[in-house]
Amino acid sequence: MTRSELAQAIRDAAYLEGDFILSSGRRSRYYLDKYLFCTDPALLREIARALAAKLPPAFDVLAGVELGAVPLVTALALEAGRPFVIVRKQAKDYGTSKLFEGRLAQGQRVVLVEDVLTTAAQAIDAAKRLRAFGAEVVKVLYVVDRQEGASENLAAADLVAEPLFVKADLGI
Amino acid sequence: MTRSELAQAIRDAAYLEGDFILSSGRRSRYYLDKYLFCTDPALLREIARALAAKLPPAFDVLAGVELGAVPLVTALALEAGRPFVIVRKQAKDYGTSKLFEGRLAQGQRVVLVEDVLTTAAQAIDAAKRLRAFGAEVVKVLYVVDRQEGASENLAAADLVAEPLFVKADLGI
Repeated sequence: MTRSELAQAIRDAAYLEGDFILSSGRRSRYYLDKYLFCTDPALLREIARALAAKLPPAFDVLAGVELGAVPLVTALALEAGRPFVIVRKQAKDYGTSKLFEGRLAQGQRVVLVEDVLTTAAQAIDAAKRLRAFGAEVVKVLYVVDRQEGASENLAAADLVAEPLFVKADLGI
Repeated sequence: MTRSELAQAIRDAAYLEGDFILSSGRRSRYYLDKYLFCTDPALLREIARALAAKLPPAFDVLAGVELGAVPLVTALALEAGRPFVIVRKQAKDYGTSKLFEGRLAQGQRVVLVEDVLTTAAQAIDAAKRLRAFGAEVVKVLYVVDRQEGASENLAAADLVAEPLFVKADLGI
């Protein structure tokens, strides 16, 4: 699948028109439903391969924020043969309560994987929690940038970040 | 990896001793942290292969309950080349609010994938919601049965169910 075929496949699978309230609180006339491009195994594998090609040369562990990025980070971990952690939005109150699920040690270099970013507020919050724990966030790798401030906000938070596609690549 | 090697690898990765409160509300002297066996890509792939061998001959879509079963259902979907849906615990209040994420149609035959079951209450609840939607739950496929009522409760809920391992297989 070429880059433009992958962009088209993501749009075909996940582009919805309507009146939506995004996680950022913003209203939007369109929504990219990440679950529609992440739950088709053939498309998910293509996305994971494209993400794997953008991994930095040196890192220890992948991370994905609950819930949307979990299929992506799982597929990328399988593709790249690297372990991952899940960043919880809130620590659960049973079993082993924690902010991160999986194995993470202080000083480890983390690649944070995200799906569709608008303002990147959730990604920046996750990166802050990883840094507060003592991990180094070496890159934020994400599938689609809606071009509404995400890349500027990530840079302002001192995060190296790269999307697979920006909104314009999808013909939106 | 043989069946007994896989059992040992799951135990080595995920068996914790201590004082735990399970999602069922029960206290336990041990905990199998599914995130520890699901976030290691080599082990996750072995588990997905073992689960794939127990898939029924005819079904339409896999399903996994948020959050614990999502890495498992993602890996199994990639292994088996089948689409999946995520069963939400609670519908989110932004974007497209729904009980299931991904594509699910009435009348579809679903295999519900779970991680570690104690009483199977969450799995039975998810199966009820899938049935209420109009899907048919043809099998509940899960990794570990703690042998505390799960298989009896699943049978009482008229669900065909099969674990990869029971507690005793793991030498617990």
